[in-house]
Amino acid sequence: MKKPLILVSNDDGITSRGIRLLVELMKELGEVVVVAPDSPQSAMGHAITVGNTLRLDQTDIFEGVKSYECSGTPADCVKLAKHFVLKDRFPDLVVSGINHGSNTSINVLYSGTMSAAIEGAIEGMPAIGFSLCDYPHEADMSHTREYILKITQEALEKGIPKGVALNVNFPPKRNEPIKGLKICRQANARWQEEFDQRMDPYGRRYFWMAGNFVNYDEGEDNDEWAIANNYVSIVPCRYDMTAHSSIGALKNNWNLE
Amino acid sequence: MKKPLILVSNDDGITSRGIRLLVELMKELGEVVVVAPDSPQSAMGHAITVGNTLRLDQTDIFEGVKSYECSGTPADCVKLAKHFVLKDRFPDLVVSGINHGSNTSINVLYSGTMSAAIEGAIEGMPAIGFSLCDYPHEADMSHTREYILKITQEALEKGIPKGVALNVNFPPKRNEPIKGLKICRQANARWQEEFDQRMDPYGRRYFWMAGNFVNYDEGEDNDEWAIANNYVSIVPCRYDMTAHSSIGALKNNWNLE
Repeated sequence: MKKPLILVSNDDGITSRGIRLLVELMKELGEVVVVAPDSPQSAMGHAITVGNTLRLDQTDIFEGVKSYECSGTPADCVKLAKHFVLKDRFPDLVVSGINHGSNTSINVLYSGTMSAAIEGAIEGMPAIGFSLCDYPHEADMSHTREYILKITQEALEKGIPKGVALNVNFPPKRNEPIKGLKICRQANARWQEEFDQRMDPYGRRYFWMAGNFVNYDEGEDNDEWAIANNYVSIVPCRYDMTAHSSIGALKNNWNLE
Repeated sequence: MKKPLILVSNDDGITSRGIRLLVELMKELGEVVVVAPDSPQSAMGHAITVGNTLRLDQTDIFEGVKSYECSGTPADCVKLAKHFVLKDRFPDLVVSGINHGSNTSINVLYSGTMSAAIEGAIEGMPAIGFSLCDYPHEADMSHTREYILKITQEALEKGIPKGVALNVNFPPKRNEPIKGLKICRQANARWQEEFDQRMDPYGRRYFWMAGNFVNYDEGEDNDEWAIANNYVSIVPCRYDMTAHSSIGALKNNWNLE
């Protein structure tokens, strides 16, 4: 059987620990090509680079793996990978991550990791973003290995629904083993921001954004519940943002004449 | 009747022509507060500023309107507006734009304009993004005036479904008047990128991303069709990206044990 072609990207940058583990795991499953940002791109959402130039340079950072670092966003990486690295080869899978930090619930909107996966889905490529709900750079990722291999193998064998990218989040490493996998919906949760206001040496104020993530969701079928209960969450995400159920309501209630 | 409180933002920056017209129109309908980026933030998607500091400074650029310029993204602007400008006042509406350029179809994902509106929706605020499908800075916006007033008035009177932000696009000014408003779904269209490869003065290559937007959608109920046929398109957008219809398929087809 021909080895599957797997494109790897991320948003923490090509030197991060997360992408190193992901490349190592993907090498067990197929031919790996890496195109990832040359610097951290966290919380870049689905940004792309239109008002500025882009760089794409080959690197030998991953042994035996064709790798490129890109000056742009994760979405840019997938676009450049398609045109200058993969060219007329179509990847069997795009994987992004492993992100250092949670991309559950609405964090999917802010997530650079998921924007690489969603950009892949837009191009018709099966795509998965992997994130670990544990932020520090030195966070233990060992418990994600077997699940990343399992999920990736399932995706390669069974496929991913068209127009959909998978948002996979792992609980932080706890004293008990992970309980299993849950296919979930995005939880109804959001940030309660707090801004840390400071003064610069020239007497002008500036802010750091911080805050708490608050879960308003009482269901047990969502990603926040899964992570809190030591499951791996898998949310199928679509890039069609239309609120189809609201089309009728607006047509009925609004005066459009 | 108490005047409605309207928060205005955009992604082209606080000095752009589009936001100036939007502020002028909103002053006819309510009390206006502006918090907008201090520099262009096009194609920033739903980026937020987490690894860097933020600035927020008052400006007198709009006569008689409390206005702030922010160093961050459109989503940052809404967050900072809530905490430092509106404080305990809740806006009756958030409007973003008028964007110089189309935000139809999947452009909603790349759009900074819509990220301000969607950030508002996440906070429970009725929110609308306005974009003109005509890119040049000097583009004629005069035909959008009556429709922006009409849509905004409908939103203030009838409301917007919860969890939804409206993505409104205007056709470019043509020789015939706009035919009317259409409530639509997001078209199935995407960019066919072309990269313009150049050499810098030091002999290193760089790229400009360009390309053509290709519509694969044969329906007449989508935003691309509406714009092509000289209608104003209104797409209700949700921030729940879950592909609910794929949850069952994945549960059935995948081996999750």
